[in-house]
Amino acid sequence: MTLLIDIRAPQWMADQDLHDLLAPHLPGVEILCGPPTQTLPTVLVLATNQLQPDMAGFLPNLKLVQKLGAGVETMLTDPNLPQNVRIARLEPSVQADEIAEYCLAELLAELRNIRGYLHDQKARLWNGVAPRRAAETSVLVLGLGHIGARVAARLAENGFQTSGWSRTQKSLPAITCYSGEADLKQALGQSDFVISVLPSTAKTRGFANADLFGAMKQGAVFLNVGRGDLVVDGDLIKSLNSGHLGGAALDVFHTEPLEQDHPFWDHAKIAITPHVSGWSLGEGLLDVAENYKRLIAGQPLLREIDRKTGY
Amino acid sequence: MTLLIDIRAPQWMADQDLHDLLAPHLPGVEILCGPPTQTLPTVLVLATNQLQPDMAGFLPNLKLVQKLGAGVETMLTDPNLPQNVRIARLEPSVQADEIAEYCLAELLAELRNIRGYLHDQKARLWNGVAPRRAAETSVLVLGLGHIGARVAARLAENGFQTSGWSRTQKSLPAITCYSGEADLKQALGQSDFVISVLPSTAKTRGFANADLFGAMKQGAVFLNVGRGDLVVDGDLIKSLNSGHLGGAALDVFHTEPLEQDHPFWDHAKIAITPHVSGWSLGEGLLDVAENYKRLIAGQPLLREIDRKTGY
Repeated sequence: MTLLIDIRAPQWMADQDLHDLLAPHLPGVEILCGPPTQTLPTVLVLATNQLQPDMAGFLPNLKLVQKLGAGVETMLTDPNLPQNVRIARLEPSVQADEIAEYCLAELLAELRNIRGYLHDQKARLWNGVAPRRAAETSVLVLGLGHIGARVAARLAENGFQTSGWSRTQKSLPAITCYSGEADLKQALGQSDFVISVLPSTAKTRGFANADLFGAMKQGAVFLNVGRGDLVVDGDLIKSLNSGHLGGAALDVFHTEPLEQDHPFWDHAKIAITPHVSGWSLGEGLLDVAENYKRLIAGQPLLREIDRKTGY
Repeated sequence: MTLLIDIRAPQWMADQDLHDLLAPHLPGVEILCGPPTQTLPTVLVLATNQLQPDMAGFLPNLKLVQKLGAGVETMLTDPNLPQNVRIARLEPSVQADEIAEYCLAELLAELRNIRGYLHDQKARLWNGVAPRRAAETSVLVLGLGHIGARVAARLAENGFQTSGWSRTQKSLPAITCYSGEADLKQALGQSDFVISVLPSTAKTRGFANADLFGAMKQGAVFLNVGRGDLVVDGDLIKSLNSGHLGGAALDVFHTEPLEQDHPFWDHAKIAITPHVSGWSLGEGLLDVAENYKRLIAGQPLLREIDRKTGY
């Protein structure tokens, strides 16, 4: 009896990483990784983000498709998936909520000068500065997938003037949505904060360069909770040192942990957090192991989808 | 020509305090305080929170009721207020929103270890700690007046398990409301954060003492955005040093600015901000003086209410 991991979302997670996470929780269970190249009659459970149309042919004894996320629309409408195969989903909103809460915390810390007051406290300095209010602050979220949309929504709920930018045009309640190159310049130029939630792809690597920082508003603050390879580190430092950018809060880096001799560490305008914005990814993923065990034991599955009603 | 200050909300603000705030901005203007006990024919403007039904009889030449807040429903429906008397309001929500935003910022800074990571950054230390989530965090707000209610609402909107405590029982949407001494112990004992928004009165001075801190949960964090004389400073330090309380974030103090030799400054578990939670109070109230001057000069008033439409 076998679990097959075939995620098909390499920029999100490697099959082997999920394997290593689940293996300790499934002792004695065979766990295979990657697209099948031959019929695999022992596979009972498939863990995937993107169900391939030819999959059922490779997995004649498949009992459960475990989606590594919440959306199951494509699976429900897949004509190749036999009706007796069950579908279950995960709760990725935990991760998205965590990242949104991190962004809210960082923005408010900036607006309320929390790091500045800690500095003042060490010097026994009583130096109040006028607070900036969320309602008077504009934020641009780069990337409007599941996580970016949740970040933007959380900020809008808290009164921030929130806009978002994505490659393809989106429509989100209470968010001004931009797309494409021309829109990007405009959106960057009017925002007090720019938050990247972009994944790492051929198009995003090095995307946060001198051009992008130069198009940002004087004194604006850049946040990165997406991927570290988005940023041209030297360009960010130059933009901060020139006085153009007001600050940066970074949770992700080219190399993690950040190298000991990296100039970010002691830059007065850079706040570093050690890749903690979306901490709880792992916990949610353990439900894959749990559902495997429940299936074998004949117990009710976590978050099984009714294939008729779709929820 | 006279301004009468008769606020009728002593726990919010004393008449004399508003007098002292406005006097420098109204040179040569007579400013009276308190309920009238005789007819005052020179009074043109009444600044109040609660229009008394007998007021028009005392003030035969009243031209303007300046509400010290936003809501004017009761004034609009007051049959005793002559139709030629104008009504204007203030924008007090600014202050309450600011304080609520401060509390949200401080709580999230604590949950996301923002001060801790700044400390780590100086030591080039990459040390991620699991974030705590608002949804899994309980907060108790002491004091449920205009500001306390807004603080509690903002925290509940952000998913915190929010409760409130006040001397007299309140009822607020999404907030578990406690009142009285017995309830206080219970509420304190179940909350990860306790925020005081209490004013300074005979009953609240010294209220945050060893008993109160002792009734708080092990490791809980105390925030004070109300008044400094609520806290018995030595008791707070003892509770932090004993390991019972996890931390404190203080915006108000017995003496402000905080004395240079005060032990709070270099206490590792105390975060100090220089009375900035409700920064914009003074500015909003100065509109009372501005509207007095505009009335005299025959200029349009700030935030005058159309008595027919009610806005």
